[in-house]
Amino acid sequence: MEGLGKAYPLRYRAAMPRYALTIEYDGAPFAGWQRQADQPSVQGAVEAALTRLTGDEVLIQGAGRTDAGVHARGQVAHVDLAKDWRPFRLMEALNAHLRPAPVAILAVAAVAEDFHARFSAVRRSYLYRLTPRRAPLALEAGRSWQIRHALDVSAMQEGAAYLIGKHDFTTFRSSICQAQSPVKTLDALEITQVGAEIHCHVRARSFLHNQVRSFIGTLERVGAGAWPAARVAEALAAQDRSACGPVAPAQGLYLMEVGYPHEPDWVQA
Amino acid sequence: MEGLGKAYPLRYRAAMPRYALTIEYDGAPFAGWQRQADQPSVQGAVEAALTRLTGDEVLIQGAGRTDAGVHARGQVAHVDLAKDWRPFRLMEALNAHLRPAPVAILAVAAVAEDFHARFSAVRRSYLYRLTPRRAPLALEAGRSWQIRHALDVSAMQEGAAYLIGKHDFTTFRSSICQAQSPVKTLDALEITQVGAEIHCHVRARSFLHNQVRSFIGTLERVGAGAWPAARVAEALAAQDRSACGPVAPAQGLYLMEVGYPHEPDWVQA
Repeated sequence: MEGLGKAYPLRYRAAMPRYALTIEYDGAPFAGWQRQADQPSVQGAVEAALTRLTGDEVLIQGAGRTDAGVHARGQVAHVDLAKDWRPFRLMEALNAHLRPAPVAILAVAAVAEDFHARFSAVRRSYLYRLTPRRAPLALEAGRSWQIRHALDVSAMQEGAAYLIGKHDFTTFRSSICQAQSPVKTLDALEITQVGAEIHCHVRARSFLHNQVRSFIGTLERVGAGAWPAARVAEALAAQDRSACGPVAPAQGLYLMEVGYPHEPDWVQA
Repeated sequence: MEGLGKAYPLRYRAAMPRYALTIEYDGAPFAGWQRQADQPSVQGAVEAALTRLTGDEVLIQGAGRTDAGVHARGQVAHVDLAKDWRPFRLMEALNAHLRPAPVAILAVAAVAEDFHARFSAVRRSYLYRLTPRRAPLALEAGRSWQIRHALDVSAMQEGAAYLIGKHDFTTFRSSICQAQSPVKTLDALEITQVGAEIHCHVRARSFLHNQVRSFIGTLERVGAGAWPAARVAEALAAQDRSACGPVAPAQGLYLMEVGYPHEPDWVQA
């Protein structure tokens, strides 16, 4: 319960209570998730709100470091706080302190001290939105990748099928990627027409840096007819960054969900 | 064909060529569709782009005068131009001249001189989006009506059913409505859960001023449990503006489509 922690000085506590946060944000005004000294970041915005709320210097750990301009509907972070909070009260207070930043806490859970937003995660789901049309995006500007030509969805699906499974994804990995191994298992890459948009749902335990945007930029070439679908298999087999298509822009990408083996007991908004 | 009109001075032409435009816009920065002397309007933005493009003073006629903050995915307007244009070329040029306003021309058709965007229309479709949750909308701010409590969709559907058909809609009509008669026929009011949102699709030949937002504000009261569904029938029967629920805010409303008995031969983006 909120306030119970006040009776015990910190030095007598076995551990600080840990909370998991589900976070939605518009990536446009941020230089990315990760805290930076001189630029606005989502992590920095949430930490600043926590500091305003608690009076303490507070650091958080995110499940995924989204790049500048990438959005999230379900980023997860954990934080250790000096006192106990009811999850609902923490969510409400944090949302009040986050205004007017386009960042919202959608759910909060009290979690065990060994829960780690990044290292405990076993599944990450992304959505990438493409809008093939000539006219500029009046309503979805910054929310979808506008492609000024038609895209062949079934060709894109054919290309995507080559990527499913366990592979060395060196081709689809940014040169600044810090992962120890380029071998990952891609669990899903589903491409569907949704009204006038094309939605790509991508799911894996974890991803290399720029992996989703490298997939989408490559599959766009297939959809445009510039690449035969089989060239995706060749690019993958090349294990060579230069075999990748162009990297798709950030604004079409959404971190949708992070999954855990023992799902936190979320209190939702 | 573009340019053919140049050979004939205007006074010798039987009529100026007429074009229909399908228009998408973000309503947020505008005081509404209708041209105003001292405030930005969507009509004013399109007319200014047409003037920049053609060098002529150009007026357009919209199918529906959306209020300040209301969005459109399929507003239709018609315009008479001094020379002939290929529809595709007119669309591309107009979109270039509209930048950076959040207004896009999605389709253009050459239409007969008796086509009138407003008076020829036989069907108007609106979408109203509601998002019931406590957390602020980080990604859909200004695009959906955030309701800070749960909504009972089936109760809203029950309330909506009373409104279908031909009725005197005085209760659901703004006091400044200029329509000659309050009697209209509501063809559809379909309420569905779409992910975390509630979508209301509303369709009629024509609407009274604020009719959709008056419906939605009233049905929100039903969904919240503040009104029994049957009170919608009582409100309708009262034919009294004071029996209406609160008017829902503009930002959740989208003019989706305008239909014509002879659909223009649209060239799409």
